[in-house]
Amino acid sequence: IAKRWDSTGKSIFSEMTSLANLHNAVNLGQGFPDFYGPTKILDAISQEVLSCHNQYAPSHGEAPLRNEISYYVESTTGVIYDPDTEITVTSGASEALYCAINAFINPGDRVLVFEPAFDLYYQAIANAGGVAVPIRLHAPDTPIGIRGGGWTIDWSEFDAACAGGFSLAIFNSPHNPTGKVFTEEEIDRIASKILKKNAIILSDEVYENLVYSPARHVSLCSLPKIQHLVVRISSAAKTFGFTGLKTGWVCAPQYLTDGIRLVHQATVFCTSPFIQLGLAKAMSDKVWLQSYLKEQNELYLTKKNYLKSILERAGYSVSNSEGTFFLTANFENLAGDISDILYAKQLTEMHKIATIPISSFYKQPPKSLPWIRFAFCKKEETLKSVAELLLNS
Amino acid sequence: IAKRWDSTGKSIFSEMTSLANLHNAVNLGQGFPDFYGPTKILDAISQEVLSCHNQYAPSHGEAPLRNEISYYVESTTGVIYDPDTEITVTSGASEALYCAINAFINPGDRVLVFEPAFDLYYQAIANAGGVAVPIRLHAPDTPIGIRGGGWTIDWSEFDAACAGGFSLAIFNSPHNPTGKVFTEEEIDRIASKILKKNAIILSDEVYENLVYSPARHVSLCSLPKIQHLVVRISSAAKTFGFTGLKTGWVCAPQYLTDGIRLVHQATVFCTSPFIQLGLAKAMSDKVWLQSYLKEQNELYLTKKNYLKSILERAGYSVSNSEGTFFLTANFENLAGDISDILYAKQLTEMHKIATIPISSFYKQPPKSLPWIRFAFCKKEETLKSVAELLLNS
Ligand SMILES: CSCCC(=O)C(=O)O
Ligand SMILES: CSCCC(=O)C(=O)O
Repeated sequence: IAKRWDSTGKSIFSEMTSLANLHNAVNLGQGFPDFYGPTKILDAISQEVLSCHNQYAPSHGEAPLRNEISYYVESTTGVIYDPDTEITVTSGASEALYCAINAFINPGDRVLVFEPAFDLYYQAIANAGGVAVPIRLHAPDTPIGIRGGGWTIDWSEFDAACAGGFSLAIFNSPHNPTGKVFTEEEIDRIASKILKKNAIILSDEVYENLVYSPARHVSLCSLPKIQHLVVRISSAAKTFGFTGLKTGWVCAPQYLTDGIRLVHQATVFCTSPFIQLGLAKAMSDKVWLQSYLKEQNELYLTKKNYLKSILERAGYSVSNSEGTFFLTANFENLAGDISDILYAKQLTEMHKIATIPISSFYKQPPKSLPWIRFAFCKKEETLKSVAELLLNS
Repeated sequence: IAKRWDSTGKSIFSEMTSLANLHNAVNLGQGFPDFYGPTKILDAISQEVLSCHNQYAPSHGEAPLRNEISYYVESTTGVIYDPDTEITVTSGASEALYCAINAFINPGDRVLVFEPAFDLYYQAIANAGGVAVPIRLHAPDTPIGIRGGGWTIDWSEFDAACAGGFSLAIFNSPHNPTGKVFTEEEIDRIASKILKKNAIILSDEVYENLVYSPARHVSLCSLPKIQHLVVRISSAAKTFGFTGLKTGWVCAPQYLTDGIRLVHQATVFCTSPFIQLGLAKAMSDKVWLQSYLKEQNELYLTKKNYLKSILERAGYSVSNSEGTFFLTANFENLAGDISDILYAKQLTEMHKIATIPISSFYKQPPKSLPWIRFAFCKKEETLKSVAELLLNS
């Protein structure tokens, strides 16, 4: 096996899902809903399977879907991307991330990553021969208190990391795993640095619709000054609550899109036409789309508040999650001085609740990191069983 | 854009399909059927869209599909692969090829490629930093005569290429674009060299079911002496005539599978569950599968013979295609001394027939290569229109 894969192992998400299944535990680890998203989407795809050409889609995506993505991104960010030259459909946001990272990084290039970070970033950087330069988000001081605090950037650390130079930055807001939604001020500060270095910034916005008031999602592409440097990634999986759709999209200026399309062509060539055409059909109903997204947001807010209250009653210090479908919780009061990996294993085996240890989101995790991530994208029944497992045992 | 993509451009398959659409030409370029494969497959997928979990599949594939693949591969090759540790489901054979190549090649490693070759091999090798070492298949002497001849290996060239050392060889039989089906003798000679060098051999067998008697497909994995070095790739697209299914599979010993799964995890993470589960359901009907494959073979043989006779009447020297859904044709008698790229363009624009110029399958094409590839995986009506365009104009 080639050397660049040396530091990669089996994904923690797969590991914890396997462990959950083994111990018959409630799975709040891997980030997928355990309830159905809109059947309108499934009906449309199911019909396209029976009626579309079922042969290769154009490598960069079926035109009807690229058109709907253009419309949709414009409606949420105000920015118009040309479907022909600036939008690419990929096999999920994962593939989009992989392609963008492999399109732009030469061996030895430095890549900024806000850490904790989705593990695929590191894997794709390693494959391209790049060097990940982590910028730490600091955990809130504990005990956090009832309303909780969020994860924060230390700007002097940020400046120090940037000083070494970089050609690409990976940004993710709303942020997995912390649930942090970067403020307009934070985003502006980061954008200014990108502009100064003339670097490319990859903006992973897959949780764009899962933002809880008063937090507000600011898409990096909506800042005119750095629009020409932004590669914006989102996906159907998180937008519609079906992570099995494996259809993502990248919006970027043409000169960047050209590179991404080369890598996409070499990795999967194209994405299944019937999924693309079904999504396009469903998304063309704009009235439905707006009301669905609003409902989804309210639903997730309720779930977040419910799980947060359970975890607090159970003795965790829970950070303030402003977006995504994740909550991070500090277990120091409950378990003292054990590693997050060991704690997460014990929680799965003994309390029958699977989570994700936060250290898996680090290139080199800090010594002490008593935090785990809970996914609240689960049906009421599932969250109720968590209450029972945590509070009545 | 990173340097390793410098020599990659837009895929010739996309280019020629665009050109065909632009000029309203019959598309015998990109290799996809223009008729429907078995609706049993579509019905099963369509049902799974409406009823399965629709969330992430296990990264290495849904268990029911891995089980069916194991059974199916055993029934055609006699080799038993363990579904849990030796079979991986990918987003098409393209992704399988990309993952295998990126899993095993370190920068500078030499990789044998039988040329002409599917262009993705070169792209994936370039991304991994490897060095492609082409071994030429030589075009049959022309005029070929009515029965035609096939493309051949010069064994002294083969030995010379191997002498430089290599860590991976990419093998493809039935062979795209030439339609060559390597004989047992040829395969054994190649296998011996692989064994001697203890190299890995990637066997692209996506056309395994499209072999025309008396030619016979010999799967590399069925040779006990090198089984432990073989990575075997096939896919639903070519097997079932629906290139939009984007579901492939890799069979390999566990120590090689481990590496492939790491790359697969980093590129797309997983493949859509409903496609996998639908395929598994359809493939579980073994009686149907056998009779479908037999019928498909007879159908394609008829198409091949029909297109071959048209091309010969039109003045082409047509090579003997023993497998795949491609015919290669020499146009020297018709157009004299022009490049294959120019000829293919003119044929699309003036005669309204799109094909693929063979030079696109070379790292560095030879000076004179008066050959183009025709796909015959087209409905009777389409092939009839080709006869009209070529013979009555
Ligand atoms: C690709 S599996 C991981 C899913 C996810 O986004 C998460 O759980 O963080
Ligand atoms: C991935 S597009 C190319 C399809 C194909 O296998 C071919 O035409 O050779």
